[in-house]
Amino acid sequence: MQFTTTKISLVNAVNTVQKAVSTKTTLPILEGILFEAIDNDIYLMGTDMEIGIRTKLSGNVYREGKVVLSAKLISELSRKLPDDEVKIELKENNKTLISCKNSEFNIQGEAGEDFPKMPEVVGEKNALIPKELFRSLIKETIFSVAKSDNIPILTGELLEISDGEFKIVALDGYRLALRKAKTEPDIEIKEVIPERTMMEIYRLLSMKEEDVYLSATKNQVLFTIGETSMVSNLLQGEYINYKQIIPSNSTTKIKVNTQELLSSCERAALMVRDGKNNLIKMNFSDSVLEILSNSDLGNLHESIDVDMTGDPLKIAFNCNYFIDALKAVSEEEINLEFTTSVSPCVIKPVDGDYFTYLILPVRYIEH
Amino acid sequence: MQFTTTKISLVNAVNTVQKAVSTKTTLPILEGILFEAIDNDIYLMGTDMEIGIRTKLSGNVYREGKVVLSAKLISELSRKLPDDEVKIELKENNKTLISCKNSEFNIQGEAGEDFPKMPEVVGEKNALIPKELFRSLIKETIFSVAKSDNIPILTGELLEISDGEFKIVALDGYRLALRKAKTEPDIEIKEVIPERTMMEIYRLLSMKEEDVYLSATKNQVLFTIGETSMVSNLLQGEYINYKQIIPSNSTTKIKVNTQELLSSCERAALMVRDGKNNLIKMNFSDSVLEILSNSDLGNLHESIDVDMTGDPLKIAFNCNYFIDALKAVSEEEINLEFTTSVSPCVIKPVDGDYFTYLILPVRYIEH
Repeated sequence: MQFTTTKISLVNAVNTVQKAVSTKTTLPILEGILFEAIDNDIYLMGTDMEIGIRTKLSGNVYREGKVVLSAKLISELSRKLPDDEVKIELKENNKTLISCKNSEFNIQGEAGEDFPKMPEVVGEKNALIPKELFRSLIKETIFSVAKSDNIPILTGELLEISDGEFKIVALDGYRLALRKAKTEPDIEIKEVIPERTMMEIYRLLSMKEEDVYLSATKNQVLFTIGETSMVSNLLQGEYINYKQIIPSNSTTKIKVNTQELLSSCERAALMVRDGKNNLIKMNFSDSVLEILSNSDLGNLHESIDVDMTGDPLKIAFNCNYFIDALKAVSEEEINLEFTTSVSPCVIKPVDGDYFTYLILPVRYIEH
Repeated sequence: MQFTTTKISLVNAVNTVQKAVSTKTTLPILEGILFEAIDNDIYLMGTDMEIGIRTKLSGNVYREGKVVLSAKLISELSRKLPDDEVKIELKENNKTLISCKNSEFNIQGEAGEDFPKMPEVVGEKNALIPKELFRSLIKETIFSVAKSDNIPILTGELLEISDGEFKIVALDGYRLALRKAKTEPDIEIKEVIPERTMMEIYRLLSMKEEDVYLSATKNQVLFTIGETSMVSNLLQGEYINYKQIIPSNSTTKIKVNTQELLSSCERAALMVRDGKNNLIKMNFSDSVLEILSNSDLGNLHESIDVDMTGDPLKIAFNCNYFIDALKAVSEEEINLEFTTSVSPCVIKPVDGDYFTYLILPVRYIEH
């Protein structure tokens, strides 16, 4: 293997695939990146056997071949190289010479043949998803993915395309986040993608210009972004029927300024954050929302003017759930809908229904 | 105690004094900030008994008094307040009401009378030091302060003013950093200031506009920056006679581009950083500097063109010491001076002598 490229291309390609490289593994070769020159193309690949990322590196191939180089070393080294042409040449016994201007590195590689292959995913179900839309849908839902794996299917996000709607859903038993957008009407996809895969695709998208092409089989999903592709396993099993959970009617309906409510919740959180349930209380009456929190540190009282229809209500929440949901909303105003003090709160846009956040209340005993 | 101020003034004043507040202490009151209203002035103070910082908070006093409030809580709380007027009022039993717009916090304080007093430092020796000069002199020397306290005096920086020269010196037994600047001719000061105090004054200076007024007694130093003052203990004992350590002549003299040498050292460091002595080798001959490093990871060879007079030389160093010193230099080119492969290297400006970095070589056995 022998090829030339530039420092900046090398840095970018290494950054792209490094996200899939194992940091803790019992298989040391997975701590490396596979460099592969075939015909006149150069490919880099990293995998931890859960996800795999492969990208093309622009350059000129003088001799085909492949080698695995330490991801940590090649990442640091490439960033420190002079901003110039880089020549990479495979020598005997997987020793690799990297030269750039007046610097010559000889590093010990491992046999390219020993590196796992990137799985072939020839999807039966395909969809093109606009980059910015996909990024925002991930960002605005992923915080609701279950942190514990008591119910394994909840450690992923449901990606559902049907009836011309593209939806992402996450729920953890205490709250639910749902975002949707219009899409092509003739595609049907319903897959549960692990949280980490969604995080990595989110990060990859922030580095790339192109939209995402998604292709899924029964067990795996392939994301293609320009010259970069990422393969991941899917979570197996039936996702919870989330539509059943979302209440369809309400007895108390509030319209409130998002930022004002968020700031109040953040202040209330200061008092209770080190506590067990992060409990803050909300009292709605006479178009005023009072927020109360107290602990050994002291107590807080906030009041916010709101538009209110329906019955007065006293209810309590884990403040962090409210803060997460409100941070994900970019609308200036939102609607909150309630039925009773032991039923979930639904957060919706004032117009339309492109997002739904649902938060279960905390039962508490009034002193 | 009752006063009003603004959110932004409160945030700034808390930030200023918080640097002195203890995070780990057996005396819980030291985790707090003293709020004190006297006449029409408001002061905040934090101390960990090693250093103390006191600053004035602009506002209007309605009732004198004092209270100690949790630094962590008041810092987070003040940042989360609406950008508006803030009212702070001491109630019964050190309970304190903080109100801002529609937010009301009741927090439990502690008695202001129990907080330690700020020591009075009426200095016999005084100097005015320009802010930017002081900042750069600290930044460009402090990395050479001894990390271990085997020789306690070396855990501080020598601040010496004599003969119209202002000098800061740090040395740790392996390297020395010396920066100097012109100053008023009639001041004589020689004090050893703990590293942490220097770090804190450096940080304080980055927040303030004013120059520093320094006032020292035998045991303590007072820095005054506008309405903020900081008191610190001094290190006791005689500082090492650093002038004796710096060689006055050389047999090999090199002029080299600073950035080029730094980049080469940083690349060489990649190979040996996880090793014991971080050893890189330098070979000077025929106006070329070769840098070599090797480890299990591989080996590196760099060559840099240099201006050279005197004898060829092979010498080895801890690369981190070279990197630290080169990062502190803003000159495009520097001089390196050597005598033998077991004698220190001296780094100097091409013109003048406003900085001196000295690095001891590492002995090594040629394979």
